[in-house]
Amino acid sequence: MAESSTAIEISKVGKAASRSQTDDVAVEEPLELRIGFATPDGRAVRSLSITMRTPGNDRELAAGFLFTESIISQAADISSIDLCAENVIRVELGSNCDVDLSRLQRHFYTTSSCGVCGKASLDSLRAVGVSPLGAGPAIPADVLTSIPDKLRAAQTTFAITGGLHAAGVFSADGRLEATMEDVGRHNAVDKVIGALLLDDRLPASGLGLMVSGRASFELMQKALVAGIPLLAAVSAPSSLAVSLAQEFNMSLVGFLRGDTFNIYSGEERIRP
Amino acid sequence: MAESSTAIEISKVGKAASRSQTDDVAVEEPLELRIGFATPDGRAVRSLSITMRTPGNDRELAAGFLFTESIISQAADISSIDLCAENVIRVELGSNCDVDLSRLQRHFYTTSSCGVCGKASLDSLRAVGVSPLGAGPAIPADVLTSIPDKLRAAQTTFAITGGLHAAGVFSADGRLEATMEDVGRHNAVDKVIGALLLDDRLPASGLGLMVSGRASFELMQKALVAGIPLLAAVSAPSSLAVSLAQEFNMSLVGFLRGDTFNIYSGEERIRP
Repeated sequence: MAESSTAIEISKVGKAASRSQTDDVAVEEPLELRIGFATPDGRAVRSLSITMRTPGNDRELAAGFLFTESIISQAADISSIDLCAENVIRVELGSNCDVDLSRLQRHFYTTSSCGVCGKASLDSLRAVGVSPLGAGPAIPADVLTSIPDKLRAAQTTFAITGGLHAAGVFSADGRLEATMEDVGRHNAVDKVIGALLLDDRLPASGLGLMVSGRASFELMQKALVAGIPLLAAVSAPSSLAVSLAQEFNMSLVGFLRGDTFNIYSGEERIRP
Repeated sequence: MAESSTAIEISKVGKAASRSQTDDVAVEEPLELRIGFATPDGRAVRSLSITMRTPGNDRELAAGFLFTESIISQAADISSIDLCAENVIRVELGSNCDVDLSRLQRHFYTTSSCGVCGKASLDSLRAVGVSPLGAGPAIPADVLTSIPDKLRAAQTTFAITGGLHAAGVFSADGRLEATMEDVGRHNAVDKVIGALLLDDRLPASGLGLMVSGRASFELMQKALVAGIPLLAAVSAPSSLAVSLAQEFNMSLVGFLRGDTFNIYSGEERIRP
């Protein structure tokens, strides 16, 4: 089992003095993702990506990434996931899974002369078949404000290193259903969604997703593809995260700290 | 001039009540980067990347990205930078600039069977010709602890939105030489390094780089390529950021808050 933190020697500098001591830092290592898939002539293997991540839950990370990037559409598309070498994970896709590798390039929407804009980013989601979400749960405001402390309590590696992002899904009655940590916020979200996918719990239309840090377009996109109608962040959302939430009928909560938060979209899912 | 923040309607929920108000959020929009370059048959144009960024200083972002990703090695490699459509920037490279597009794929180091690891990530930097840095400046500890407040004061959009990362370079006597903001930490660093590049101030061996948030492998790599021997972060470094600093003779400071900080590598550049 790979470690998610590692001890190193540091110098701690304070107002009066400086001293040497051992400190724990979050582990960051590359992970190469390869997929095996059926072709007209048999099967092929392709290296899809190398991402910097914190070791641990690599199967969930790989499954979640493939799903949220719309390379696969269901758990049944995966026939096996194996660590085939150090930091190399290989996902074999079923022969009835129609792999459209061009989707990986969908952010390179063909624009030639007319420029790109936030609207084009939203349109590219529609183009891969993503639709606005249904009503979903109504979450009491005091459940929402209870989630940050619960998520922090579940962050065992953060507690040691102070250096990891967290993501967790929670139910309308305030239960944390899955939590993950990673040096990358996107990876933490992919791990959570991958865990739900492998448990056959997607679309997760009854859950909310909480993330440490800010809410960006890409995090909203991942929640949307997983059918999660509410995303709550400790910090600020970006303009395009707000646009995506409005356009796809999602709830977006920011600055969720203590007893207060801001609702940027989808107020009807939060019960006062 | 593109705006870096935009006003939207939100609901603000407090312990007792909730009210509607106007709030400012950081703008996030895609930027497509195209390069024009000489080929044996004339010239070609290629779309290199689309990144989500906060509009503003797009020229610096493009120049910095090309430089820190080792696509170009000096400002003279660029003959022009123009915004050719909405959110599309085109960089024309000089005919004596030998473009090696495979470098963009260098994170896909050929590993076939032996796996990948942090060491391979460090080796891939050596492979593109990056070497350990020289001695560099000695920065007094009290100069270092003065930088976060100065950087925060320079963050005009953060002050409005609470939603942007910042990066800034500073001299050994505590002067901020350039600061940039962006929804993406990598972009903020690329903008700062791009500004130095376009001013012909690289390698910046006499400066330090301060970033909001954490210190990752990729941020250290960007500082290294720009010849900046010290990186200071508000939060924690990752294991691979520490390894890179040690291997390439860089100073790495983390948890720089108030009067205290931790030194993870290169203590000799910090004067008590």
